[in-house]
Amino acid sequence: MKINGTPYRSVWVDENDGWSVHIFDQTRLPFALEVMRLVSQDEVAHAIRTMQVRGAPLIGAVAAYGLALALRTDAQDAALEDNAAMLAATRPTAINLRWAIERMLTHLRPLPPAERAQAAYAEAARICDEDAAQNEAIGRHGLELLRAIADRHGPDRTINILTHCNAGWIATVDWGTALAPIYMAHDAGLKVHVWVDETRPRNQGAALTAWELGSHGVPHTVIADNAGGHLMQHGQVDIVIVGTDRVTRSGDVANKIGTYLKALAAQDNAVPFWVALPSTTIDWTVDDGIKEIPIEERAAGEVTHVAGRDPQGKVTQVQITPDGTNAANPAFDVTPARLVTGLITEKGRCPASQAGLLSLFPELG
Amino acid sequence: MKINGTPYRSVWVDENDGWSVHIFDQTRLPFALEVMRLVSQDEVAHAIRTMQVRGAPLIGAVAAYGLALALRTDAQDAALEDNAAMLAATRPTAINLRWAIERMLTHLRPLPPAERAQAAYAEAARICDEDAAQNEAIGRHGLELLRAIADRHGPDRTINILTHCNAGWIATVDWGTALAPIYMAHDAGLKVHVWVDETRPRNQGAALTAWELGSHGVPHTVIADNAGGHLMQHGQVDIVIVGTDRVTRSGDVANKIGTYLKALAAQDNAVPFWVALPSTTIDWTVDDGIKEIPIEERAAGEVTHVAGRDPQGKVTQVQITPDGTNAANPAFDVTPARLVTGLITEKGRCPASQAGLLSLFPELG
Repeated sequence: MKINGTPYRSVWVDENDGWSVHIFDQTRLPFALEVMRLVSQDEVAHAIRTMQVRGAPLIGAVAAYGLALALRTDAQDAALEDNAAMLAATRPTAINLRWAIERMLTHLRPLPPAERAQAAYAEAARICDEDAAQNEAIGRHGLELLRAIADRHGPDRTINILTHCNAGWIATVDWGTALAPIYMAHDAGLKVHVWVDETRPRNQGAALTAWELGSHGVPHTVIADNAGGHLMQHGQVDIVIVGTDRVTRSGDVANKIGTYLKALAAQDNAVPFWVALPSTTIDWTVDDGIKEIPIEERAAGEVTHVAGRDPQGKVTQVQITPDGTNAANPAFDVTPARLVTGLITEKGRCPASQAGLLSLFPELG
Repeated sequence: MKINGTPYRSVWVDENDGWSVHIFDQTRLPFALEVMRLVSQDEVAHAIRTMQVRGAPLIGAVAAYGLALALRTDAQDAALEDNAAMLAATRPTAINLRWAIERMLTHLRPLPPAERAQAAYAEAARICDEDAAQNEAIGRHGLELLRAIADRHGPDRTINILTHCNAGWIATVDWGTALAPIYMAHDAGLKVHVWVDETRPRNQGAALTAWELGSHGVPHTVIADNAGGHLMQHGQVDIVIVGTDRVTRSGDVANKIGTYLKALAAQDNAVPFWVALPSTTIDWTVDDGIKEIPIEERAAGEVTHVAGRDPQGKVTQVQITPDGTNAANPAFDVTPARLVTGLITEKGRCPASQAGLLSLFPELG
């Protein structure tokens, strides 16, 4: 996608040296657009843990490059397995991370160590290209939903879409998942407006989704996470589209904490609730998402403190609780399949169920 | 209630001059406990509008004193009516404000102007005393619910209560509504723990409820507003208790934005959802809360900015959205009666329905 007219992806290899890996430091957005150069698997792991890169598809892609960086130093079997395990453990909930590492291992294990680094870069590049292509396809399949709303309401009425967290192009290699249909609809001339949940505690909606949509010119309004139910009660939301970090084979959806509450409100108000994902986000080994998906517990400081820009223009953190206050910070929740209208994948749309998923991906069942 | 062992109410008349009105500036909590002296109805109106005092019962009581202050200057009929209307218009959603002003007018209109100021102080003091007594009674009736949970689970298991916003003693004259049963349970030796929704955008949970509970020694944990559904899915919430700004005759509940989402999650997980209120919060003129209760839209800056204490110890605001981002800020939502397990009032508990309310308050029907 474009920033001020220049096309970017969210991760790329340095054109000059051919091996170092570049990302945007997403902890600096929206107040600074800073490119970071990563030169080791440790730097990649740190970037993932601290959420300098985040978003399920993107951390899979960046972790793949992390393994490539590791193999430049030591490409023996032990190093391959150790670095893969270390990278896979950086965050527990998103399945794309494990998927990307597994794919890399499957590709690299049979190769002689001397060939592994180069092969790893090539495979990581394929993962990136495929992610971008899958998200573009998700965009097309999601666009049909928005066109159907426009057909129903007429072209003059704005389509109001609510989204939670950031499932945009900077959460993926390109296009985004939940935001891909919105970008395409906007570019196609449909009148869209996005309600952006700020997404406490890390405010990925307020900081990243608002920045992305603003950079692309898509009309949007930031709201407190508390407000979506009220808007749905009053007919101000036509459709909810979110991304996901892991979908079980039965269609349960792990996504940023608070997604479940929006799904409940959508159901209570007959608002369609769609989840956009590349098939790499499906975990066929898991059935019951609430019981089986590990939910990352992040630092209490993300709740007791809020990052932002102070009146002097300095980016800082402010404490919002009394000194010594305890806080809990589960980073994800699971929305049961029964609350999900459907899934938008690169192969098309389907019900959030095993039968639905198998209808699109019979080879994975 | 006590702050460091000293008993306080949330509003009181100066002991020395006998007429100026004292409040805590709640916008300074939790980082500073500052008493404000209000000497005119304009200062009272400003304190209500800017939420230096907030909480439905408390703004009713403070507005009553605001009218008393006005009458010291001009107690003629026109001034009485004008000042009452001005104070009643400071905030639209809480019904206690209108109730308190109406009660004052009914009491004062028949009196000769020369007697009105003194009578107004006396009536405002009665409103305060009655609010404190009603909340104490709410606490006793709510305590029974917590005792029943303790009886079921045994004394060793902690009772986990989730609350939203601040319905504690500083939202009322004393005791609080939703927090009154919790204070009594804690004082009675029950093991209670409170999940405190931070309550964006103004963070009354993180700032005020955490401060209140901490000052009284009640164990609590602050969470992002997004987290409650996840906790309920995993059996970590035994009961939800919230306050309210207005209850319709059919039992619909207006309360801080986001309450509705927690009620949906409570229903989905069979967690009891109780609403604590003095009968002054009931609006018998309104039936359908979603259609009929006016919802205050507050400034966008409350969403785009967050107040807190910076690393240098200075209380400031940080911007969390890109420059120029739109934000919407509905301050309340309405939870339909069907999602409410019951109401806790000074007369006892009842179903959230017209029949339920009439069973406790037949004289009001």
